[in-house]
Amino acid sequence: MFTQTTEYALRAIVHLAQHSSSPRTRTQIAAGTQTPPDYLAKVMRSMVRAGLVKAGRGLHGGFTLARDPASITLFDVVSVVDPIQRIHVCPLGLETHRNTLCPVHRKLDQALATIEHTFRTTAIADLLSDSSGVQPLCATPACAQLLEVRV
Amino acid sequence: MFTQTTEYALRAIVHLAQHSSSPRTRTQIAAGTQTPPDYLAKVMRSMVRAGLVKAGRGLHGGFTLARDPASITLFDVVSVVDPIQRIHVCPLGLETHRNTLCPVHRKLDQALATIEHTFRTTAIADLLSDSSGVQPLCATPACAQLLEVRV
Repeated sequence: MFTQTTEYALRAIVHLAQHSSSPRTRTQIAAGTQTPPDYLAKVMRSMVRAGLVKAGRGLHGGFTLARDPASITLFDVVSVVDPIQRIHVCPLGLETHRNTLCPVHRKLDQALATIEHTFRTTAIADLLSDSSGVQPLCATPACAQLLEVRV
Repeated sequence: MFTQTTEYALRAIVHLAQHSSSPRTRTQIAAGTQTPPDYLAKVMRSMVRAGLVKAGRGLHGGFTLARDPASITLFDVVSVVDPIQRIHVCPLGLETHRNTLCPVHRKLDQALATIEHTFRTTAIADLLSDSSGVQPLCATPACAQLLEVRV
């Protein structure tokens, strides 16, 4: 239900949050997130356009987060690359269902609303300060120790 | 997040539950669910193969539900056409995340688990006996009165 684009966008945002002291190049992000560079380029362009990420040019150019990871939610990221399509209007266009969705579409929309709530209330920073000791994108404790976020 | 195939499959199953006394042809289902007939044919084949729907040939042939709508859940239908892809293993293949997903993938999987639970605990019959008075696929009270399910 979550697309590959969502997966890659989340990895990239997490990677930038983990390396916030200096810009990261596309090559660095692709390597650190196991993401195909061309696919990543498209994802990054979307996130730059949406104001989640800044792109700098030149010798010390690269990508950085445009906002504090505590203020970027999963919902913000997903909304850029693959928005949750809530069901506000009867998909069959039935006029009498306009103000009250039928039970089928109400149930589907309730499921979507639950996901939306979870995503709206989860910041990227929350995912990096999790107490499990398992850092996203990091295979080893040594990797986790090198990050600029502390668990 | 729910595909068009899921939407069409649910409409078709609901339609069959609403007209359980005699088989429904593909043309009748397509008209009653506003579904493209060719697309519907593929969806119906999947549901026949999965044992949710029976297909009869000949003059009085057509599709019927293979089970009581009280025993068919949303999860059963979705699992046939567009299964919920839970995250059981680290998508990056990180060996150290094998037994404990990182917080990103744990959060995504929790969202999927919530949907799975909702879908597993909602039967097609529940959606037809809903007290809202709005019948799926029915634009008018007259239509609802003609159905074989009672709200």
